[in-house]
Amino acid sequence: MEKLPKIAVTMGDPAGIGPEIVVRACLSPQVTEMCEPVVFGDPEIIQDAATRFAQPDVKVIALEGPNLPDLASKAPESKNQLFVVKCTDVPNSELRPGLVQPAAGRAAAQSVIHATKEVLKGNFQAVVTAPLNKEALQLAGFAYPGHTELLAELCGVKSFAMLLYLPPPLGSPRKTGLAVAHVTLHVALREIFDKLNSPSVLEKITLLHQFLRRLGIIQPKIGVAALNPHGGEHGIFGNEEEQIIAPAVVAARERGIEAEGPLPADTLFLRAVQGEFDGVVAMYHDQGHIPIKLLGMHRAVNVTVGLPIIRTSVAHGTAFDIAWQGRANPESMIEAICLAARLATSPAT
Amino acid sequence: MEKLPKIAVTMGDPAGIGPEIVVRACLSPQVTEMCEPVVFGDPEIIQDAATRFAQPDVKVIALEGPNLPDLASKAPESKNQLFVVKCTDVPNSELRPGLVQPAAGRAAAQSVIHATKEVLKGNFQAVVTAPLNKEALQLAGFAYPGHTELLAELCGVKSFAMLLYLPPPLGSPRKTGLAVAHVTLHVALREIFDKLNSPSVLEKITLLHQFLRRLGIIQPKIGVAALNPHGGEHGIFGNEEEQIIAPAVVAARERGIEAEGPLPADTLFLRAVQGEFDGVVAMYHDQGHIPIKLLGMHRAVNVTVGLPIIRTSVAHGTAFDIAWQGRANPESMIEAICLAARLATSPAT
Repeated sequence: MEKLPKIAVTMGDPAGIGPEIVVRACLSPQVTEMCEPVVFGDPEIIQDAATRFAQPDVKVIALEGPNLPDLASKAPESKNQLFVVKCTDVPNSELRPGLVQPAAGRAAAQSVIHATKEVLKGNFQAVVTAPLNKEALQLAGFAYPGHTELLAELCGVKSFAMLLYLPPPLGSPRKTGLAVAHVTLHVALREIFDKLNSPSVLEKITLLHQFLRRLGIIQPKIGVAALNPHGGEHGIFGNEEEQIIAPAVVAARERGIEAEGPLPADTLFLRAVQGEFDGVVAMYHDQGHIPIKLLGMHRAVNVTVGLPIIRTSVAHGTAFDIAWQGRANPESMIEAICLAARLATSPAT
Repeated sequence: MEKLPKIAVTMGDPAGIGPEIVVRACLSPQVTEMCEPVVFGDPEIIQDAATRFAQPDVKVIALEGPNLPDLASKAPESKNQLFVVKCTDVPNSELRPGLVQPAAGRAAAQSVIHATKEVLKGNFQAVVTAPLNKEALQLAGFAYPGHTELLAELCGVKSFAMLLYLPPPLGSPRKTGLAVAHVTLHVALREIFDKLNSPSVLEKITLLHQFLRRLGIIQPKIGVAALNPHGGEHGIFGNEEEQIIAPAVVAARERGIEAEGPLPADTLFLRAVQGEFDGVVAMYHDQGHIPIKLLGMHRAVNVTVGLPIIRTSVAHGTAFDIAWQGRANPESMIEAICLAARLATSPAT
C-alpha cells in the first residue's frame, strides 16, 4: 500500500470552532483514507472536543518536542487514535468559548508556528490551518494581519497569493472543481482601480494555471472575468477590459496558457460550473466570493500559492457565536485537508 | 371560473430568438393556465415559428386594427389556436435570421408600440416583451437606448426602474422567489461611486418593497448589500457602508420597511435563497447579476417598476447565434408572462 502523506493540522483559536471542526475532520473517513492528519495544539483541548463532538471513545495521543519525528512517522494504530503535537501553553481552565482572549490568540499562533516549522523540516507534507481571530492574535503580541503573513515570514517569502477553491461535489464525475484567483482582494472597491494592471492580471492567471496543473489538469482552461457590466460593452461601460485585461490574456496565451477573456462576469461562473473552465480570475473580492459561496458556502477552501510548502485553510472564520456548541460544519476543514493531501501526492508538485 | 387576464406579448426582433420563445411560451400549459396571451407582431412569422418549434398543428388567428377589442375579448377556442395582432410591415421574405437588419428593428419597435398602446387603453392587463436588438432598433430610426426608454415615453413617465426577479423553482414550497433591485446598473464600475448616495439606495429599497407587496408578501424582508469586501470591515475597507448605505436602511425602517443591512454581499444571496430575505438591493450590476444568473440563468425575468402599466420581459438578449434553430430556451419568457399575470391579478395592484 502506498504511504499516505502526513498533514499538520493546526487547532486554530481554541475559543472558536477550530477544535471542533479539526477533530471531526481528522476522524472522518474522507480524510483518513487520503492522509494521516496530526493536530498541532493542546492535547487536552483536542481530547475534550473529540469526546464531545466527534467520537466519545477517541483517544488523543500527545506528542512532544524531541520525540516528534519518531512518533509522527507512525500511523495511528486504530481509528480511535488521534495524534496531537503539544505546542501551546494555554491555561485551559481560564479559556472562555466565544471570546477574544490573548491566551487563545497565543495558542493559535503557537500551533501555526510549530506546524509550519515541522513542514519546513520535512516531517510533514503540508499544513492545514483552522481559523484564528486577528484581534486575539494581535492582543497576544503577534503583529500580523492574519495567518498568511505569519506563514510568509516563517517561510521567508514576500510574494504569495490566495486562491479560493471549491471542490467538485461528492460523487460528481468532475474532478477539478472550480478555482478562483483574485487580482485584488481585501481592499475597498473604490481602490481596486489603482491595483488593476496587466502585470497583476497576468500574475494571477499564471498562478492559477500552476495550481490547476498541480491538481493534475494537463491543459487547464482559465476564464478571465471582465470588470464592468456586459464586459464593458465595447468600451461603453468602461475601458479596463481593452486596456488592462485583454493584453494580460494575450500575454498569457503567448506563454501557452489556455486563457480566455475578458468575459462578462455574470455568466462566466455558470459557464465554468458547466465545465467550460477549470478556473476563473476575478478582478475583486466579491466578484469571486459571491459565486463560490453561493455554489458551496461550507465546502470552499483557501490555498496559499507562492510558499515553499503546501498550505490550505478553511474559507471561514472562528464563528465565536456558535463555538463549542457542536453546531459547526466541518466540511470546509475536511475539503482543506483532502486538497492538501491531493497536492502533496501530485506528481506535478 | 374566474376570468383570466389578457397579456400582450411582443414578438421581439424577428431575426432573433423572439418568435421561437414567444410561441413556445404562449402555447405552454404553465402560461395558458394563468392567462390568455395574445402576440403582437407578424402572423406569418409567428405561424412559421409555431409550426416549426412549438406545435405542428397550431393555427394562428390574425387580428387586425379595428376588430381588436372584440376579438381580443374572446378566448381561444382550443389549445391549438394562437391569437396574433398584426402590427408590423416587415417584408418577411427578405428577413435573414441572426442578422442586424433595419426591417427587423422596425418590426420589433412596432410590436412594442402597438402592444403598449393596447395595454394603456385597457384592452390588455400587461405587456411582456421579447428581446430586441438595440442596433437594429436604431438603424430603423428609433433612437432609444432600449425597450425601457421607449416604454417610458409611450407611458409619459420619466422615473422608472428595472428589477431582476427569479421565480421560485417549479414545485418549490417557496412562493416569493428572489427579487433584486440595483442602485446602479449600466455604468462602468469606476463610475458607480458618483451615483451611490443615501437617497438612491432608499429609492431602490422602497421600489423593491412595493414590488414584493404586489407579489402578495405582506411584510417583505429586504437585505441591503454592502459595497466593499466583508461589508467594509468596520471602515477598514471603505466607508460607503457607514456613510451611504446604513443611513438609507435606517430611513427605510422608519418608513415601516423591514430592511436590514448593509450586509456582506458574498453571503447575502445565499441567506436570501435560504429564505431569510424576499429581496435584495444590490449596489451595482454584477453584484446582483452574478448570483441571479448562477441560481437560474434561464428563468430570470425583468420587471419595470414605475410605469402606469405592468411590464415584464425576458432577462436575456436576441441570441442571434442560435436564432431560428429550435435551440432557444423559453423559460425566461414563460416566467415573464406568468409574473405579469400574477401581478395583473394581485389584489395589491
